[in-house]
Amino acid sequence: MDEEVCRMTELSKELQDSAASLISRSCNEEASLRQRALSLHTSISNLRSSISSSLKKGNLHPQHALKLEEELGRARYLLTQGDAAAFLPTKSHGRFLRMFIGPLNVRATRKDVQLKVKEEYNSFRDRTALLFLVFPLLLLGLRSWTWDGCLPALPVQLYQAWLLFLYTGLALRENILRVNGSDIRPWWIYHHYCAMAMALISMTWEIEKQPDCSQKQKGVQLFLYWAIMQGVAMLLQNRYQRQRLYTRIALGKAQRMDVVWGETSGVDGQLWLLCPILFILQGFEAYVGVLLLQTALVGVVSEWQVITCGILLIVMAAGNFVNTVQTLLTKSRF
Amino acid sequence: MDEEVCRMTELSKELQDSAASLISRSCNEEASLRQRALSLHTSISNLRSSISSSLKKGNLHPQHALKLEEELGRARYLLTQGDAAAFLPTKSHGRFLRMFIGPLNVRATRKDVQLKVKEEYNSFRDRTALLFLVFPLLLLGLRSWTWDGCLPALPVQLYQAWLLFLYTGLALRENILRVNGSDIRPWWIYHHYCAMAMALISMTWEIEKQPDCSQKQKGVQLFLYWAIMQGVAMLLQNRYQRQRLYTRIALGKAQRMDVVWGETSGVDGQLWLLCPILFILQGFEAYVGVLLLQTALVGVVSEWQVITCGILLIVMAAGNFVNTVQTLLTKSRF
Ligand SMILES: CC(C)(COP(=O)(O)OP(=O)(O)OC[C@H]1O[C@@H](n2cnc3c(N)ncnc32)[C@H](O)[C@@H]1OP(=O)(O)O)[C@@H](O)C(=O)NCCC(=O)NCCS
Ligand SMILES: CC(C)(COP(=O)(O)OP(=O)(O)OC[C@H]1O[C@@H](n2cnc3c(N)ncnc32)[C@H](O)[C@@H]1OP(=O)(O)O)[C@@H](O)C(=O)NCCC(=O)NCCS
Repeated sequence: MDEEVCRMTELSKELQDSAASLISRSCNEEASLRQRALSLHTSISNLRSSISSSLKKGNLHPQHALKLEEELGRARYLLTQGDAAAFLPTKSHGRFLRMFIGPLNVRATRKDVQLKVKEEYNSFRDRTALLFLVFPLLLLGLRSWTWDGCLPALPVQLYQAWLLFLYTGLALRENILRVNGSDIRPWWIYHHYCAMAMALISMTWEIEKQPDCSQKQKGVQLFLYWAIMQGVAMLLQNRYQRQRLYTRIALGKAQRMDVVWGETSGVDGQLWLLCPILFILQGFEAYVGVLLLQTALVGVVSEWQVITCGILLIVMAAGNFVNTVQTLLTKSRF
Repeated sequence: MDEEVCRMTELSKELQDSAASLISRSCNEEASLRQRALSLHTSISNLRSSISSSLKKGNLHPQHALKLEEELGRARYLLTQGDAAAFLPTKSHGRFLRMFIGPLNVRATRKDVQLKVKEEYNSFRDRTALLFLVFPLLLLGLRSWTWDGCLPALPVQLYQAWLLFLYTGLALRENILRVNGSDIRPWWIYHHYCAMAMALISMTWEIEKQPDCSQKQKGVQLFLYWAIMQGVAMLLQNRYQRQRLYTRIALGKAQRMDVVWGETSGVDGQLWLLCPILFILQGFEAYVGVLLLQTALVGVVSEWQVITCGILLIVMAAGNFVNTVQTLLTKSRF
């Protein structure tokens, strides 16, 4: 037994040494890769601008410049989308993420882990989009069948609390995806901050009781309509984005990273189908906002909550519209 | 220029290869370390139980057994607290963490990163503990000086929303610390879930307006008293735990991991000073809970929110008490 104990002590010392050496070795190697990646990244950018300035000065044939730029684009794509991308400087973590989880590094080095995080985000959205539809429909249904046109406070508030946590989770995950190299537009994250504010504010709404509740509950009802709409938009968007991701994973697995350059589509046709529906939903979102402002100004329910939510909805609708249009413009330029 | 572009392409391919090889190499080495760590961990546990069974059967001299156990303890300490600890199986991430940030790995491999996360957690708590004291004191002060004994709804609800986010952040960070090997008792995390529920529920409280508000606002007032108390408890606890951490960092830097075994104190004396104050605060917490239940039962404010918060406070006080006592018992056994 003495021997055994001795062996354990030996083994644990050995293990400690190997662990320490592995950690310090990979630290060093990572640091050197980081440096190489950064310097390559700047050289590529510099070369790019010198190509375009030579082109302007007429020192370079346009066709030749195009060829060079294409080749350079390929090198850049390999650098920013391949394994080396993990060693480029991170996008900063952002205040929101730091407030909730502190200074922890949330970047995954391995590509397959990054894809797993993204896949899980998509399936999280799928799961929640359904609940998004079911809860408010249930509330509105029960209101007309069982509750005599009057929503009781507790279920509505539970639903709003759920929304708050859901949006917080989405905003956190999207921040994490951004750090992991997603090109998500900042607006889609701000949009979720606005939605968090909506959920929080609507929780402090007084849900009026009898009599006359159907008049006074106009605000809550409109809020629920907005939620249903969000559910529909989310489901459509999920369908489209999941397919995009699958295409990408398939391409990644085929190890053709340096061949495929630029937007890899076949899915992009779908975007032109999706967008009209999104525009209608966004129009409806703004309309709900205006209705909220109306109920507040006509004086049926004149709480500040109703006014703020109305303004928030209009801002969100406008932002969504502008950003969807910009996305379309960017894509059609390819 | 052609040459330059060619070189960039070459360089980016090389970099991609080095990155891919580093990633796969460290993946493999990590996997092997993980296996070694796990098997050593089980062998140590097995040896430990066989020592104690031999001792029971009388095959081993008690003093000898003690010596063996001490040595084994040292090996175990090195394994679980040294660099190799990063390769032991993680504690599971828990539903709460997964709900908010998905399946991301939040364990830091390097010891200094882990300590940084912990330090940041402590300074986050320091910053918030002060606000914890200032906000409710301000609200209560303004109530008597400016607001004629009546709290307006908006500032109180803003404060409650802040509390909700704060507790969510604390709970997330503590879950992350746990994954990074902290020995934090699960109760302290549950305690923050309860506090989140309190903040959420209190947001839906109707804050009654004139007339007679000072009667009807009993519940809100008591809630603010509880918050002040929490601030005091947090400040005291922070002072104590920061010192503990500094001791540990100092020891870690001195690289004497395998010499120092067991609780490394000098700070532990402080615990016996801190605990009486904590017990008083916990008693006061339970008392506030009882007062809340009383206002609800006497009928001044009979909303379900008041009753639930009362019960939550009593549960939290009891849990805090039991866990503080258990901590003391564990420590005095050393
Ligand atoms: C317009 C839209 C379909 C474009 O999607 P897309 O083709 O994926 O857009 P991009 O190519 O610019 O995407 C870049 C990245 O941002 C992500 N992204 C785009 N829109 C996103 C959104 N609304 N939420 C989260 N992530 C989004 C993409 O997944 C992609 O991530 P990746 O780089 O990790 O692959 C999408 O932005 C959308 O559905 N927006 C409308 C949402 C809306 O208006 N909702 C409310 C209606 S009431
Ligand atoms: C009793 C108490 C001082 C003990 O602290 P301690 O000596 O650090 O306790 P332990 O040695 O068991 O700590 C183990 C780990 O849990 C952490 N921890 C202990 N109590 C914690 C708490 N309340 N919150 C967060 N982390 C805590 C420690 O930092 C330590 O982490 P580490 O392993 O990463 O170093 C502390 O738990 C405490 O202050 N609790 C009372 C809180 C309370 O009652 N508040 C409400 C009053 S109204």
